[in-house]
Amino acid sequence: MLTARELLDPLLGIVGIVLGAVVLRWLVHRLIARLTDGLAAGRVSSLLRPHRSGSPGTAERRAQRARTVGSLLRSVASFVIFGVAFVLVLSKLGINIAPIIASAGVVGVAVGFGAQNLIKDFLSGIFMMLEDQYGVGDVVDLGDATGTVEMVGLRITTVRDVNGTVWYVRNGTITAVGNSTQRFGVAVVDVPVGYSADVDQAIGIAGEAARQAVTRKPLADEVLGDVETLGAQDLTQAAITLRLTVKTKPGRQWAVRRALTADVKMALDTAGITAAA
Amino acid sequence: MLTARELLDPLLGIVGIVLGAVVLRWLVHRLIARLTDGLAAGRVSSLLRPHRSGSPGTAERRAQRARTVGSLLRSVASFVIFGVAFVLVLSKLGINIAPIIASAGVVGVAVGFGAQNLIKDFLSGIFMMLEDQYGVGDVVDLGDATGTVEMVGLRITTVRDVNGTVWYVRNGTITAVGNSTQRFGVAVVDVPVGYSADVDQAIGIAGEAARQAVTRKPLADEVLGDVETLGAQDLTQAAITLRLTVKTKPGRQWAVRRALTADVKMALDTAGITAAA
Amino acid sequence: MLTARELLDPLLGIVGIVLGAVVLRWLVHRLIARLTDGLAAGRVSSLLRPHRSGSPGTAERRAQRARTVGSLLRSVASFVIFGVAFVLVLSKLGINIAPIIASAGVVGVAVGFGAQNLIKDFLSGIFMMLEDQYGVGDVVDLGDATGTVEMVGLRITTVRDVNGTVWYVRNGTITAVGNSTQRFGVAVVDVPVGYSADVDQAIGIAGEAARQAVTRKPLADEVLGDVETLGAQDLTQAAITLRLTVKTKPGRQWAVRRALTADVKMALDTAGITAAA
Amino acid sequence: MLTARELLDPLLGIVGIVLGAVVLRWLVHRLIARLTDGLAAGRVSSLLRPHRSGSPGTAERRAQRARTVGSLLRSVASFVIFGVAFVLVLSKLGINIAPIIASAGVVGVAVGFGAQNLIKDFLSGIFMMLEDQYGVGDVVDLGDATGTVEMVGLRITTVRDVNGTVWYVRNGTITAVGNSTQRFGVAVVDVPVGYSADVDQAIGIAGEAARQAVTRKPLADEVLGDVETLGAQDLTQAAITLRLTVKTKPGRQWAVRRALTADVKMALDTAGITAAA
Amino acid sequence: MLTARELLDPLLGIVGIVLGAVVLRWLVHRLIARLTDGLAAGRVSSLLRPHRSGSPGTAERRAQRARTVGSLLRSVASFVIFGVAFVLVLSKLGINIAPIIASAGVVGVAVGFGAQNLIKDFLSGIFMMLEDQYGVGDVVDLGDATGTVEMVGLRITTVRDVNGTVWYVRNGTITAVGNSTQRFGVAVVDVPVGYSADVDQAIGIAGEAARQAVTRKPLADEVLGDVETLGAQDLTQAAITLRLTVKTKPGRQWAVRRALTADVKMALDTAGITAAA
Amino acid sequence: MLTARELLDPLLGIVGIVLGAVVLRWLVHRLIARLTDGLAAGRVSSLLRPHRSGSPGTAERRAQRARTVGSLLRSVASFVIFGVAFVLVLSKLGINIAPIIASAGVVGVAVGFGAQNLIKDFLSGIFMMLEDQYGVGDVVDLGDATGTVEMVGLRITTVRDVNGTVWYVRNGTITAVGNSTQRFGVAVVDVPVGYSADVDQAIGIAGEAARQAVTRKPLADEVLGDVETLGAQDLTQAAITLRLTVKTKPGRQWAVRRALTADVKMALDTAGITAAA
Amino acid sequence: MLTARELLDPLLGIVGIVLGAVVLRWLVHRLIARLTDGLAAGRVSSLLRPHRSGSPGTAERRAQRARTVGSLLRSVASFVIFGVAFVLVLSKLGINIAPIIASAGVVGVAVGFGAQNLIKDFLSGIFMMLEDQYGVGDVVDLGDATGTVEMVGLRITTVRDVNGTVWYVRNGTITAVGNSTQRFGVAVVDVPVGYSADVDQAIGIAGEAARQAVTRKPLADEVLGDVETLGAQDLTQAAITLRLTVKTKPGRQWAVRRALTADVKMALDTAGITAAA
Repeated sequence: MLTARELLDPLLGIVGIVLGAVVLRWLVHRLIARLTDGLAAGRVSSLLRPHRSGSPGTAERRAQRARTVGSLLRSVASFVIFGVAFVLVLSKLGINIAPIIASAGVVGVAVGFGAQNLIKDFLSGIFMMLEDQYGVGDVVDLGDATGTVEMVGLRITTVRDVNGTVWYVRNGTITAVGNSTQRFGVAVVDVPVGYSADVDQAIGIAGEAARQAVTRKPLADEVLGDVETLGAQDLTQAAITLRLTVKTKPGRQWAVRRALTADVKMALDTAGITAAA
Repeated sequence: MLTARELLDPLLGIVGIVLGAVVLRWLVHRLIARLTDGLAAGRVSSLLRPHRSGSPGTAERRAQRARTVGSLLRSVASFVIFGVAFVLVLSKLGINIAPIIASAGVVGVAVGFGAQNLIKDFLSGIFMMLEDQYGVGDVVDLGDATGTVEMVGLRITTVRDVNGTVWYVRNGTITAVGNSTQRFGVAVVDVPVGYSADVDQAIGIAGEAARQAVTRKPLADEVLGDVETLGAQDLTQAAITLRLTVKTKPGRQWAVRRALTADVKMALDTAGITAAA
Repeated sequence: MLTARELLDPLLGIVGIVLGAVVLRWLVHRLIARLTDGLAAGRVSSLLRPHRSGSPGTAERRAQRARTVGSLLRSVASFVIFGVAFVLVLSKLGINIAPIIASAGVVGVAVGFGAQNLIKDFLSGIFMMLEDQYGVGDVVDLGDATGTVEMVGLRITTVRDVNGTVWYVRNGTITAVGNSTQRFGVAVVDVPVGYSADVDQAIGIAGEAARQAVTRKPLADEVLGDVETLGAQDLTQAAITLRLTVKTKPGRQWAVRRALTADVKMALDTAGITAAA
Repeated sequence: MLTARELLDPLLGIVGIVLGAVVLRWLVHRLIARLTDGLAAGRVSSLLRPHRSGSPGTAERRAQRARTVGSLLRSVASFVIFGVAFVLVLSKLGINIAPIIASAGVVGVAVGFGAQNLIKDFLSGIFMMLEDQYGVGDVVDLGDATGTVEMVGLRITTVRDVNGTVWYVRNGTITAVGNSTQRFGVAVVDVPVGYSADVDQAIGIAGEAARQAVTRKPLADEVLGDVETLGAQDLTQAAITLRLTVKTKPGRQWAVRRALTADVKMALDTAGITAAA
Repeated sequence: MLTARELLDPLLGIVGIVLGAVVLRWLVHRLIARLTDGLAAGRVSSLLRPHRSGSPGTAERRAQRARTVGSLLRSVASFVIFGVAFVLVLSKLGINIAPIIASAGVVGVAVGFGAQNLIKDFLSGIFMMLEDQYGVGDVVDLGDATGTVEMVGLRITTVRDVNGTVWYVRNGTITAVGNSTQRFGVAVVDVPVGYSADVDQAIGIAGEAARQAVTRKPLADEVLGDVETLGAQDLTQAAITLRLTVKTKPGRQWAVRRALTADVKMALDTAGITAAA
Repeated sequence: MLTARELLDPLLGIVGIVLGAVVLRWLVHRLIARLTDGLAAGRVSSLLRPHRSGSPGTAERRAQRARTVGSLLRSVASFVIFGVAFVLVLSKLGINIAPIIASAGVVGVAVGFGAQNLIKDFLSGIFMMLEDQYGVGDVVDLGDATGTVEMVGLRITTVRDVNGTVWYVRNGTITAVGNSTQRFGVAVVDVPVGYSADVDQAIGIAGEAARQAVTRKPLADEVLGDVETLGAQDLTQAAITLRLTVKTKPGRQWAVRRALTADVKMALDTAGITAAA
Repeated sequence: MLTARELLDPLLGIVGIVLGAVVLRWLVHRLIARLTDGLAAGRVSSLLRPHRSGSPGTAERRAQRARTVGSLLRSVASFVIFGVAFVLVLSKLGINIAPIIASAGVVGVAVGFGAQNLIKDFLSGIFMMLEDQYGVGDVVDLGDATGTVEMVGLRITTVRDVNGTVWYVRNGTITAVGNSTQRFGVAVVDVPVGYSADVDQAIGIAGEAARQAVTRKPLADEVLGDVETLGAQDLTQAAITLRLTVKTKPGRQWAVRRALTADVKMALDTAGITAAA
C-alpha cells in the first residue's frame, strides 16, 4: 500500500517542477525581450557592430529583425525548458529515465551530424541580421549568386540575378558577402589601346574625355567625385590598358562605367589612337 | 517465491508505460497535424517564409506537401516513442538495459557518421518544401543539374535537362537553388561589334531594332516591359559588346534572347556595322 | 556454497533472454519481410517514390531488389539482436560487462570514423534501389564515370564507358545521377555558320533540312516528335551557332544528333552558307 | 585475513574468463574460416557480387585473397577478445578498471580521429578484394594513378604507369576504379577533316579504310567485332570530327586505335580530303 | 515532516554556492582584466608576438582591442560560472539534475557541430587582434576579398575593394592574410619587348629610364630605394619580359608601378625597341 | 584513527600496481621488439607487403627503420601504461579520480580534434616505412612536391626538387606516391609532325633513328630493351604526334627521352618531314 | 553538529591536494625543462630529425625556440593541473562536482570543434620549430604565400613576398614547406628556339655560352658547379625548348637564371638561331 506521503511527495515535486519551468521560461523570455529590444533600438554590443549603421530607414528594419530573431530564440528556449521539465516529471513518477536520456542523446548526436548545416544556416542568418550586412534591394555577391536581394530570411537569402533567376542561397554557405550598394560605388573604366600608342597622350585624352562626361547630364547626377586617371594598368605585347576610376552613387557604378567606356573610346578614336597594336 | 506484489508491480508499470506511450504518441501526432494543417493553409511562421507566395495552384501543392512532411514526422515520432517504451518495459521485467542502451548508442553513432548525408537530404527536402523553392515544371539550376523539375521528393529532386537526361539530385547536396520561372525573366542580349564601330550609333540601331521586334508578334506576347539599352558592356582590342535587356514572361527569356539576338544582328548588318575589328 | 536459487535464477534468466532474442528476431524479420514484400509489389511509400515507375520489366527488377535489400537488413538485425543478447547472458553469469560495453563503444567509434564511407555506400545503394534510379543497360552519368550500367550493387555500381573501360563506382560518392534513357531523349544539334550569314535564311534552311531528314528512314524510326528550330543560340565575332532540337527514343539521341548535324551541314553547304566568318 | 573464498572466487573467475576468451576466440576464428572458405570457393553473398566473375585463373586468386582477408580478421578478433579478457581479469583482481576503460576510450577516440584513413584503406581493400575489381596485370585508372597493376594489397595498390613510375595508391582514396581489361575494349578513332569536306563521302571513305584494316593482320587478331562508323561526332567552324569504333581484345584498344587512326588518315589523304578548313 | 536541519542545510548550501560563484566570477574577471591590461600596454607573451609592433598610433588601437577581447571573455566566463551555479542550486533543492546535464550535453554537442564556424570566427578574430595583423585603412588580401580594411570585428572583417564593394569576411575563413601596407611596398615593373631585341641594351635603357623617373617628382616622394634591374624574367618565342623593382612607401607600390611602366615603355619606344617579335 | 589495515591495504595495492605496470611495460616492449626484429629481418606480414623487396642495401635500411618505428611504439606504450598506473595509485590514495578521468577525456577529445593531422602523419609514416615505398635518393612524386628524397622521417619526408628547393612534406597529406626509380623507367618520346606527312614513312624513319641511337654510346648503357614504335598517338588538324617508348635504367628515362627526341627530330628533318602542317 | 573529524578531514584532504598539485607541477616543469634543454643542445630524438642540421648560427636559434616551446608547454601543464586540483578541492568541500565536470565536458567538446584550427596551428608550429624547417631570412613557399620569412611564430609564420606584401600564414594550413635556401639552389634555364633549328648545334652554342658566362664575374661567385646541358626538354610544332642547369649558392638561383637566359639568348642570336619556327 502506498502511504499518503508516497503519493503526495511526487505530486508536490511535479507541481514544483512545472511551476519552476514556467517561471524560468518567463525569465528567459524576458531576457530575450530585453536583448531584442536593445537590438531594435540599435544598442548592439560593440562586439557585433562591424559597421557604422547610419542610413535612414534602418530603424524599422532593425526592429523587424529583432522581432524575428527574438521569436526564434523564444521557441528554442521554450522547447528546451519544457522538454527537461517533462523528463523531470517522469522521473518523479518513478519512471527510469536513463533510456529516455540515452535515446535523446543518440537522437541528438545522430541528428546533430545531419542537422549541422541547418544550425549553421540559422546561426549565420542571426548574425547577418544582427550585423545588418544587407537588406532588401541591395546588390550583393553571395558567392553562389550575385544580384539584388529580394528577401532576407533566417535560413536562406533570396537574390534575383541579372537574368531574372531567383536564387535561394543557404546563409550557412556564404563565407563572404560583397555589398555593392553601401554609401558609394567606384566605376573602374579599363580601355585598351594599341602597344604603339603614346601612353601619356592617351592617358591625357582619356582623362579629359571622362572628366567632361561626368560634368554633363546624366552622369553628373550619378558621380560623387572627380575622375582619377590611374594610368597604364597593364602592358602586354599587344596592348596598353588605361584605367580611370570615379566614385558614384551606390548601385550606379555599372551604368557609369558603361557610359564612360563609350565616351573614352570615342575620344580616343577621334584622336586617332586605335586599338591596333 | 515471488510475492504478488513482486509480480503485480512490474505488470502495472508495463501497462502504465504502454498507455503513456500511446497517449504521448497521440499528442505528438496531434501536434504534427496542427503544424502541417497550418502549412497546408499557408500559415507558415515568418521565420520560414522567405518569399511572398501568391501564384495560383500553390494551395493544392502546399496541402500535398504538408501531408508528405507530416507523414515523415509521424513515422519518426512513433519509432522513437515506441522504442523508448520498449526499453522501459524490458527494464521493468528486470532486464539489465545498460548493454541495450550502449549498443543503441554505438549503432547510433556509427550510423550517425554514415547516415548524416541521408539526414541532410531529408532535412533539406523538408525545408525546401516548407519554403516552396520550386515545383514541378519550374526551370531550376541545382548546381549538379539544370533543367525542368519533374518531381520534388523529400530525399531527391528529379530534373530533366536540355538533352533529355533525367537527373536525380540529392537535396542535401544543393547549396543554392536558381529558379528561372518566378514571376518574370530577363532576356540579356549581348551583341559584339568590331572595335572600329561608332559606339553611340551602334547602340542606337541595336536598341531601335530590339524595340521594334518586341512590338511585333510573337515577341509582343512574351515580353513584360520595355527594352533597356545598357550600352557598351565590354571593350577589348577586338570588339565592343553591346548589351540590351528586356523583362519577359517566366521561362520565355531564352526564346526572347535568341530572337532579339538575330534581329539586332541583322539590323546592324543592314547599317553596315560589322563584327570585323 | 551456492544455493539452488543462486544457480537457477541466472539459468532461467539466460533461457528467457535467448528466447526473447529469438522471438524479437523473428518479429523484426517479419517486419522486414512485410516491408520488402511491399517494395516488391511496388507499394513504396510516397516519401520515397520520386518518379512514376511504369516501364515494363520493372516488376521483376523490383522483386529482386526487394530481396537484396531485405537480406541485408535481416543480417544486420540478427547481428545486433544476438550481440546484445550475448552480452546480457554474460551479465547474468556474473561477468562485469562494463569493459565489454566500453570496448564495444571504443571499437564502434573508431570503426565508425573509418567505416562511414562503407555505411554511406550501402545506404546510398539501398535508396537508389528503392527509388529505382537506374537499371542494367541504362546509360547514366554518375560523375566519376559515364556509360552503360553493367551491374547495380548495394555498395558499388558497375558502368562500362565508351572506351570499353569498366568503372566500379562507390554508391556513396554519387551526388547526382543523370539517366539518359528514361522515356525519351533530346538530340541537340548545334551548327556554326559564319558571322556574315543571313540568320533567318540559315535558320530556315537548317530547319527544313532537319525536318526532311527525320521523315526519312532510318531517322524516322528514332525520333518521337517534330524538329524545333530554336534559332541563334550564340553569337560571337566569328560565328553564329544555330540550334535545333528533336525528341528521340531513349538512348538514340546521340545517333540522331550526329546524323542531323551532317544533314544540316550539307544543306547549308548546298545553299552556299559557309562557316567562314 | 582473506578467507579461502575471498582467494578462491577471483581465481575461479579468472580461470573462467580465460577459458571463455579462448573458446570465444576459437568460435570466432571458425566463423571467419567458414566465411573465407566460402569466399575462396566463390560463394560470395549476392550483396557483394557486383560482377559475374568467370575469367580463368581467378579461382586461385580468390583463394589467396580469402586467406589474406581471413588473416587480418583473425588478428583483429584475437586482439579485441584478449584485450577485454585482460581487463576483466584485472577487475577480478580488485583493480579499479574505470581509469583503464577511460584511458582506452580516450586513446580510442584520439586515435580514431587520426586513424580513420587507415581503417578506410583497409576496409576499402577488403571490399575491393571481395568484389574482385582488379588483379595483377590489369590496366586500371585509380584516379591518382593510371597504369598496370603490380600488386594488390589490403592497404595500398601498386600501379606502374606509362613512364615506368610505380604508384603506391592508398585504397581508401580511390572513389572509382576504371578497369580497361575486362572481357573487351573499344578503340575509338576520332579523325578531323576540314569543314569544307563532304561529310557523307568522308564517312564512307573512313569506314571503308577501317573495315579493310581490321581484316588484315595484325589487326585481325586483335579486334572482336565490326567497325561502327558513328559519323560526325563534332562540328566546329574549322573541322568535322569523324568517329569510328571497334571492339577489341582487352588491353589492345590503344594499339588498334593508333593503327586505325593512321590507316584512316592515309585513306582520306589519298581521296584528297584534307584537314585544311 | 522536514526537520530544521533538512530545511537549513540546503539553504546554507545554496547561499554558499551563490557566494562562491560571485567570488569566482570576480576572480576570473580580475584575471581577464590583468591579461587585457597587459595587452593594452603591449606586453603580449612572446608566444603570440609574431611581429615587432612599432608603428605610431598602435597604442590606442591596442587598448581598444584589449577592451573588446576582455568584454567577450568576461561575458563567456560569467555565463559559464552562473550556469554551473544554477545547476548546483537546483541539485541542492533535491532536483534530479541528470536530465539537465544530459540535455545540456545534447544541446552542447548538437550546437557544437553547427556552431563551430561561429567559434572559429571569434577565436580567429581574437588572435588576429592580439597579433595585430591589420588595422583600419590597411590594404589587405583576405582570400575572399582584397581591398582597404573598413572595420575589424571579432567575428567579421569589413573590406572595401577596388569597385567600392564592401565585403564582410568571416574571420574564421581567412587562412592567410596579405597586408600590403607594412613598412614598405615593392613596385614590380614587367615590360615585354620583342624576342629579336638586344637584351642587354633593352635592360640598360629600361633601367636608366626608371632610375631617372624615380628622381623626379612625384615619384621621388614615393620611392624608398634604388631601382633594381633584375633582367630577363621570362623568355618565350614571342617576347622577353624585363623586370625592374623599386621599394616604395607602403600602399604606393601600385601607383609607382603604373608610372614606371609608362616611363620605361616610352623610353624603349624612343630607342626603337618594340614589342613586335 | 586509521587502523593498520587501512594504512597497509592501499600501500600494498600501490606496490602491486607499480609492479604490474613495470611488468606489463616489459611485456609490451618485448612484443614490440619481436615485431620490429621481424621487420628488420624482412618478415613483414603478407598483409603489409605490397611489393617484392629485393634490391640490395635494403636490409640495413629495413633494420634502421625497424628501430625507428620500435622506438616510437615503445614511447607511446610506456606513456599510456604509466599514466594509467599513476591514476590507479591516486585512486588507492583515496583521491576522487572522476575529475581526473573527465579532464583527461576532455583534453583527449579537444586535442584529438586538433592533433588528428599529427597522428595521421605518424601513422602514414609508419606504414610507408613498413611498406618501403621509397628511400633516400629515389625520385618520387608526392603530390605536393616532386624530386629526389633527401630524408625519410616518421612525420615528414624531405624532397629536393629540380630547382634545388627542399620540400618538407607531411606524410599524412600524401595520398599516392609515385616512385620513378624502381627496377626500370620508360622513356616516352612524343614527336609532332605536320598533318600532311606520310604517317607510315614518318613512323619508320622515327623508329629507325631511335633504334640506331640506342645502340650507340652513351644511350646504349642506359636503355634496357628495344625501342617500341607505338605509332600515331594523336591526330589533330595541325599535327600527327608520333610516339616511341624504350625501357631504361631507373632514373635515366628523362635523359634518354631528351636524347631520343633530338635524334628523332633530326632524322625527320633530314628526310624532309617537317612540323609545318 | 559537525565533529572535529568532519571538519578536519576535508581540510587535510585539501592541503594534500594542493601540495600534490604543486609537486606534480614542479615535476612536469622539470620534465619539460629537460626536454627543451635537450632540444636547445640539438639532442632531438631521431624520430623528429628529418634533416642533418649543420648550418652555423642554428645553435642560438635552437635555444630560443626551445625556450618558446617550453614556455607554451609549461603554461598548458599548469593550467590543467591546477584546474583538476581546484575541482578536487571543491569535491572535498562537499560540492557535487558532476555538473562542473559535465559543463567542462560540454564546453570542452563545443570549443574542441571550433578550436581545432587553433590547436592544429600550435601543434604544427611546435613541430616546425623542432624540425627546424625554416628560419628568418629563408625564402620559402608555404602554399598560401611565397617569399622571405620575416618571423617564425608558434601559431603563424610571417612572410614578405616579391611585392612587399607581408603574409600572415597559419601554421596549421601549411601542408608542404618548400625552402629554396638550403645548402644550394639550381638555376634552370629554358630557352626556346624555332622548330627548324639544328638541335645539336643549338645545344652546343647554348651550353658554351652558359659555360663561359659562369666563369666570368659576377656569376662566377654565385655558381657552385658546372653547367649541365640537359638538351631538348620539350618539342612542339613551333619550338624546341633547350634546358641547361647549374648549381648556385642558396637564394641566388633566380639571379643566375635571369643572367644565363640573357647570355644564352644572345649567343643564339649571334649564331643566327632564332625563335621563329
